[in-house]
Amino acid sequence: MIAGKHIEALRGLLGDKGIVSESRDMAAYQTGARYDEGVAGLVLRPRTTAETSSVVSYCVRNDIALIPQSGNTGLVSGSTPDSSGDQIVLSLDRLAEHFELDAGNRSLSLDAGFRLSDVNARLESHGLFFPIDLGADPRIGGMLSTNTGGSRFLKYGDVRRNTLGVKVVLADEAGTVLDLNCDLRKNNTGVDWKQIFVGTSGAFGIITECVLNLERLPRQTATAFLVPQSAAHVLPLLTVMEERLGAYLSAFEGMSGNAVAAALAHVPSLRNPFQGGHIPDYLILVEVMRTWAPREGEQSLDEVLETALAEIWESEAAPLADAFVGPPAEMWSLRHALSEGVKHAAKLIAFDVSFRRGDIMAFCERMRADLPQAFDDITICDFGHIGDGGVHFNLAVKKDSPQLADPIFETTLRQWVFKIAVEDFGGSFSAEHAIGRKNQAIYDAYTSDTLKQLAASLKMITSPGKLGTVTFG
Amino acid sequence: MIAGKHIEALRGLLGDKGIVSESRDMAAYQTGARYDEGVAGLVLRPRTTAETSSVVSYCVRNDIALIPQSGNTGLVSGSTPDSSGDQIVLSLDRLAEHFELDAGNRSLSLDAGFRLSDVNARLESHGLFFPIDLGADPRIGGMLSTNTGGSRFLKYGDVRRNTLGVKVVLADEAGTVLDLNCDLRKNNTGVDWKQIFVGTSGAFGIITECVLNLERLPRQTATAFLVPQSAAHVLPLLTVMEERLGAYLSAFEGMSGNAVAAALAHVPSLRNPFQGGHIPDYLILVEVMRTWAPREGEQSLDEVLETALAEIWESEAAPLADAFVGPPAEMWSLRHALSEGVKHAAKLIAFDVSFRRGDIMAFCERMRADLPQAFDDITICDFGHIGDGGVHFNLAVKKDSPQLADPIFETTLRQWVFKIAVEDFGGSFSAEHAIGRKNQAIYDAYTSDTLKQLAASLKMITSPGKLGTVTFG
Repeated sequence: MIAGKHIEALRGLLGDKGIVSESRDMAAYQTGARYDEGVAGLVLRPRTTAETSSVVSYCVRNDIALIPQSGNTGLVSGSTPDSSGDQIVLSLDRLAEHFELDAGNRSLSLDAGFRLSDVNARLESHGLFFPIDLGADPRIGGMLSTNTGGSRFLKYGDVRRNTLGVKVVLADEAGTVLDLNCDLRKNNTGVDWKQIFVGTSGAFGIITECVLNLERLPRQTATAFLVPQSAAHVLPLLTVMEERLGAYLSAFEGMSGNAVAAALAHVPSLRNPFQGGHIPDYLILVEVMRTWAPREGEQSLDEVLETALAEIWESEAAPLADAFVGPPAEMWSLRHALSEGVKHAAKLIAFDVSFRRGDIMAFCERMRADLPQAFDDITICDFGHIGDGGVHFNLAVKKDSPQLADPIFETTLRQWVFKIAVEDFGGSFSAEHAIGRKNQAIYDAYTSDTLKQLAASLKMITSPGKLGTVTFG
Repeated sequence: MIAGKHIEALRGLLGDKGIVSESRDMAAYQTGARYDEGVAGLVLRPRTTAETSSVVSYCVRNDIALIPQSGNTGLVSGSTPDSSGDQIVLSLDRLAEHFELDAGNRSLSLDAGFRLSDVNARLESHGLFFPIDLGADPRIGGMLSTNTGGSRFLKYGDVRRNTLGVKVVLADEAGTVLDLNCDLRKNNTGVDWKQIFVGTSGAFGIITECVLNLERLPRQTATAFLVPQSAAHVLPLLTVMEERLGAYLSAFEGMSGNAVAAALAHVPSLRNPFQGGHIPDYLILVEVMRTWAPREGEQSLDEVLETALAEIWESEAAPLADAFVGPPAEMWSLRHALSEGVKHAAKLIAFDVSFRRGDIMAFCERMRADLPQAFDDITICDFGHIGDGGVHFNLAVKKDSPQLADPIFETTLRQWVFKIAVEDFGGSFSAEHAIGRKNQAIYDAYTSDTLKQLAASLKMITSPGKLGTVTFG
């Protein structure tokens, strides 16, 4: 519970519109996108960095815990309050006024509360976009705090690569504003402090403004489905596509047959691209892009992709069993339906892991061999970003499986998978969802004491107040 | 002076080959690439991370100052000892054994003492390279500590973007080894500590090993010289080249006529590409690259570049006064001769600044207008990386100028230029050379107290011992 005197003091700082205190109005701020539901003691909605600073200062001085919340679309319980009712949600949703495009510099200075879709809609007429491609529609501040990656990492990198500057409010008694809002690409003038706030879930400060790198909108896109001869042919295929398509290549996404089958079963409008209802064991979606409009006398992008595939098809290594170019919208709609498809059919237990690119298929093969020995009633529905090593390793547990009644089943399963992913394969236990309450335990288990001590010290020198859902130290 | 007992103790840790104590043998470790010459009390040459840790621990426990030194090719006095004779140089030059390529992952795990040229020579047969293009031939550890950028930033980014992991020895009493040696691209598992050691000149720890991102070697390259109608046409030219050449575009380098003239005068083998000895006021070198070999039936890369230039030439905006495609080696040889050319003709006072891309030409125009009012006998010989905002703003002072006798002339001039670059244009006082003894004063002048306090605290929690040439706190 937040004492009435605190609520009134905070109302004084933000005005009525800046405070949500009725239970029914707080519901959207308490519920995460996939997991759990907490109880907010209060929701603060500052409109500016200065207002954010004033309420953060008040809360730190009164030892009140703050949970920064952006679009609240994350998948690791990183932006929702716990069940105590003692935590205040600080939402960025009204921090969405300042929006200043520098088209020549390909940079955008803006408040952190804008939604990704809104940003890109405003940029479209300038032929520019923020090139992070995601299933969800987060707000920008949360994208920085999560360091989201997505499907076009191969070409454009992650949020970290595309962040030029940030403005951050520290959770200290003064509510210090750290102005790192830089619009330069080359700037080596000491510690690059913004890096500390990217990907750390708001634990070291609240990002209220930022400057983003933009890229030119593609004017041509072509896609193909590839069926590899076997799992061992996936990496050679990626290598040869990188050689033959170079900087055109914008996505190389893998999909297990199980994940494709679940999507086709769940979304009736999807067309099975294979004849006779056949679904291959593994399918790859390849995408290429160009920034210019089609030119007369120049091969179309479809033809470029077809040429590259024909060269691969005729090569001695012969990594392909099947391949065909098709409409990007249709091919991506299958890819984007995977997550919902898997969730619909069963109890989903999801892992956001990553590996060296050559280890992805080996890990999945190992799982297909070992997991049925260790657990019952589980279908492996993996898919992922082969080009950058990320795998959404999804386990679909039959909804009527007796295991689900076991209170420690999910924890046991998660530990079992992570042990193989991290210890045997040197993989990451969080590729692109970052750390939240959901994976605090796995962070604690796999982070060295040295790094925990460093993080605890960093916390003390930046934001000693109670901030965020994660304890890094 | 380093006491004999310390020299013997350190010899015990590294063996005879790991120690240089004779004055004549230490010369190369004492002299920087461009500025100043110091006196080393001793040079340490550890062969492994463990050896580095042991000598760092010894020096911290005995309060001896260490200067980490990599290829010693930097331009800001970041890796040479001062004149006291009390500092020990810790060279990476023998840390060059471990070299492990993962071609499928496009990553390379290696000791930090390899030279860039050596790394790329070893990678060539695999069709891969580390894509940072520089005039010098540094060792890898120093490239990370400087966060070098170079001429192909537009396509490949800086060293920071291409660093996947590092191993660092901290200057604490234990010589703690921080193992952040990761070969994953997507890995969001807490604070990305490696970022603290990139670009900070070794002040927070010594990078002894690392994992680099590699890119596919280009198989086709084409270049052109462009002459813009005026300074105001440079940014529109860049924008339209980005649209029409997209991800092919790998460099967009600007050269002032003065810099070109100095290069042509100094290097007799260079051919003036313009008829009748004419040199334009400003010249742009554009480069495009493709990763695949020429294909039958496909436009050559020269033709692609010519097509784009013809489209621009015929456009209504007409930003071009002249443009022609030519051999990459010849065109780059002019670009690479600029620095030497300018140095040869006069006393060089060099600035490594950066701006929003749209401000580069405005800054240079402002300098051309104001500088002759404030100082005599100076020719502005700027050139730079227009695509990423970096400018090598070089001032050539006549060698017989009476100003050079004034002991505070250079300091006054540097402050005058930086004031306009940083305060009026919001530029950076160190684009890609990082901070060393040479620009400590300008760092002190333009860094906020808040950031200095944070850096001092960071120093205490990482490397409290005496390390490096820079004081960030």
